[in-house]
Amino acid sequence: MAKAPILTPQAEDFPRWYQDVVAKAELADNGPARGTMVVRPYGYALWERMQAEVDQRIKAAGAENLYFPLFIPQSYFTREAEHVEGFSPELAVVTHAGGKELEEPLVVRPTSETVIGEYMGKWVQSYRDLPLLLNQWANVVRWELRPRLFLRTTEFLWQEGHTAHATAEESDAYAKQILRDVYQDFMVNVLAIPVVPGRKTAAERFAGAVNTLTVEAMMGDGKALQMGTSHDLGQNFAKVFDITYLDDQGDSQLCHTTSWGVTTRMVGGLIMAHGDDRGIVVPPALAPTQVVVLLVRDEDGAGEAAEAITRELQGVGVRARLDAQVATSFGRRATDWELKGIPVRIEVGPRDLKEGTVTLVRRDTGEKVAVPAAEAARRAEALLPAIQADLLAAATRRRDERTADVASLEEAVEAGQDGFARVPWDLVRDGGEARLAQDAITVRCLQRPDGSLPDSEDEPDLVAYVARSY
Amino acid sequence: MAKAPILTPQAEDFPRWYQDVVAKAELADNGPARGTMVVRPYGYALWERMQAEVDQRIKAAGAENLYFPLFIPQSYFTREAEHVEGFSPELAVVTHAGGKELEEPLVVRPTSETVIGEYMGKWVQSYRDLPLLLNQWANVVRWELRPRLFLRTTEFLWQEGHTAHATAEESDAYAKQILRDVYQDFMVNVLAIPVVPGRKTAAERFAGAVNTLTVEAMMGDGKALQMGTSHDLGQNFAKVFDITYLDDQGDSQLCHTTSWGVTTRMVGGLIMAHGDDRGIVVPPALAPTQVVVLLVRDEDGAGEAAEAITRELQGVGVRARLDAQVATSFGRRATDWELKGIPVRIEVGPRDLKEGTVTLVRRDTGEKVAVPAAEAARRAEALLPAIQADLLAAATRRRDERTADVASLEEAVEAGQDGFARVPWDLVRDGGEARLAQDAITVRCLQRPDGSLPDSEDEPDLVAYVARSY
Repeated sequence: MAKAPILTPQAEDFPRWYQDVVAKAELADNGPARGTMVVRPYGYALWERMQAEVDQRIKAAGAENLYFPLFIPQSYFTREAEHVEGFSPELAVVTHAGGKELEEPLVVRPTSETVIGEYMGKWVQSYRDLPLLLNQWANVVRWELRPRLFLRTTEFLWQEGHTAHATAEESDAYAKQILRDVYQDFMVNVLAIPVVPGRKTAAERFAGAVNTLTVEAMMGDGKALQMGTSHDLGQNFAKVFDITYLDDQGDSQLCHTTSWGVTTRMVGGLIMAHGDDRGIVVPPALAPTQVVVLLVRDEDGAGEAAEAITRELQGVGVRARLDAQVATSFGRRATDWELKGIPVRIEVGPRDLKEGTVTLVRRDTGEKVAVPAAEAARRAEALLPAIQADLLAAATRRRDERTADVASLEEAVEAGQDGFARVPWDLVRDGGEARLAQDAITVRCLQRPDGSLPDSEDEPDLVAYVARSY
Repeated sequence: MAKAPILTPQAEDFPRWYQDVVAKAELADNGPARGTMVVRPYGYALWERMQAEVDQRIKAAGAENLYFPLFIPQSYFTREAEHVEGFSPELAVVTHAGGKELEEPLVVRPTSETVIGEYMGKWVQSYRDLPLLLNQWANVVRWELRPRLFLRTTEFLWQEGHTAHATAEESDAYAKQILRDVYQDFMVNVLAIPVVPGRKTAAERFAGAVNTLTVEAMMGDGKALQMGTSHDLGQNFAKVFDITYLDDQGDSQLCHTTSWGVTTRMVGGLIMAHGDDRGIVVPPALAPTQVVVLLVRDEDGAGEAAEAITRELQGVGVRARLDAQVATSFGRRATDWELKGIPVRIEVGPRDLKEGTVTLVRRDTGEKVAVPAAEAARRAEALLPAIQADLLAAATRRRDERTADVASLEEAVEAGQDGFARVPWDLVRDGGEARLAQDAITVRCLQRPDGSLPDSEDEPDLVAYVARSY
């Protein structure tokens, strides 16, 4: 008897598939206030693992964590006109506290840029204080009219890095280092998502930045998702917040600053990059649970065998858990673990055990093999790096298959319906972005012909990646 | 030439010493909005280590992390009268967002109790879903009229655990397990603070709880600081939020719930429990930096020797860092590391090195010894557990010396001026708490004569710990 599919098939309705899988895999619920989100334990475990991996790389890049307040006096948002323009319709404002109206309203931070700028100005005195490399993990609020869980929510979780440097060369180099060694390295090697790094066009650049770098990922429906950005702010913010230092000659100089961030949106990216009609697929390097040992029935020593395999896996450092909830049907539990994308499942049942075997199942390919029970832990452990590599290879293949090299805007519009198009930037600049926008297509980023990051959008022979996007 | 003391001596003015040390050790600054706090990198590193240690114990107790929204519709605060009464003057309220006035104002969470209660009601269906063990790390806001960095701030960071159980026995046992295995274990064994566990009196109990358990620490001035609480809420919250389950007979039953939390206030507790006139003192088990290797002057191979010692320490898992900032005077740097309470300092200079030695300095006792350079790393590593044990012993000695067993309320008031008093609870109940309050003294907790946790304040022969408190 064929079971009714529990998820809307991706090919039928990708957005509905996304909604279904977020609910059924118990990743998140809508919060009680519009646009907010309750991140459920499994969704939060994915985020915690992302945080740990990103945080480790941020620390390796020399930045230190700290924490700034949630509330920012409204006056901070009138200091830099360009900045306000970017945010003000998105702000949530506290007007009452302690039982009365406040003299000055407090903005719930949409980013801590302004307040961190002010304190950097206080903390930086001399060239000896530079570079100042700071990072914060926090919640931020930007009012959303069309919220979607993980992808666009009124409140989201993120890290925001803010640094100050003595020279333009240093801020430029640091913004690139974060993009490459923190974001790209994490996304490729942990999330198994072959992101495209590049430079944003002036139209897509962060307000106040002299250069915005991005990593763009292709989702299962061929659309792009901006997974993270790193901004070289030049001296623009330093001017506004008076971030100056005395150089070794005793002269006052303006600092060069950067800012960079990734958010809980990455959880949405993970879901849409690897998910299939059976659920999400979590790469082993990220997975909070890498192997689930599924006890079929607790008979004839199967319970003890399942426990022994779980312990053996944990003993060698594999994140393994035992599912011995035999009161729930085996089929239901197997489907649940597939929904949740656990990389490897080991099914341990009395019938197989009589033959001395258990069944190993790969979540990515669905491949099942019977292996001797005594070898199960070792075989599962060995599968993890293979699955990690295969997931990255499959995502890279799909990205490349759905990326078309085109020679006109018309072809770019055509290819951009359900994939990326690579089009000469010379064909796009001066009006081309507006033309693409008519078809809801944007320039995701610019690269040099060899794939490296341009120093300016005026360089010759640049390639523009264009696509629809989330 | 004697240097001017950089901190106000504790004996002269303890609160001013606290302010001084928070600023000079670069732990925190005041935020731009009243009552808010900027936690600077070193203060945040202490908090991160606390988080890691507490989180590990919470997970070992079976609870899973998740994340609820910052904003809670105002209507949630009118559901349970008792709860509202406890919080409403403390609330910060968002009335405007997205450029217009909201139909229903949003409260910035003072705790997530109400919204978590609602979702627990949805998630718990049958006895198979129990116990439901949840925890959240988040920022919360309670309007403060007399803020003090770390101890009492408008916004603070905390974890809040929320659990649902089938029976009264289970919620009671879980609230006690959290107090003992998570909070007390962490505070005693990591913070080296000999906290006093006990039961709050009805007057001091959390609104809505049937039992509030607490861990109380003695600060350097003899006052008490409540370091964490664990509440058995009985069926009170389950009634309000309709948290019910079907038992194995198919009958609907009300759950029994708990909640429990610790906050950034623990950083304040750490400062005041171990600090001295030279700065804070961080126990090795907590310290983000356990050993600092201080290069005196980079001459005659001293730089290489300092690096080698640092690497050797890191190689055996000690959190060590090298200070080779020889452009800043040695004395200034040594004073700074003392201020920051790094447990062990290794001074590496060309003069000592000629004799083949370096100097090991213990932060807690100030003891200095010359040791052969080749043995420095091993000797420093061996010192760490000894320092940890000595700090706990010293804090325990001070707590015991300043805890008086008394036989009347008058004596309790006297002893409570600058220490704890243990007084028979029978002398306090029925009016005694009001009498003590006249001298700003409160009952911190109740214990049985053997130190265990009472099941009720009506048990005979209970002992009340009374003190002034933060």
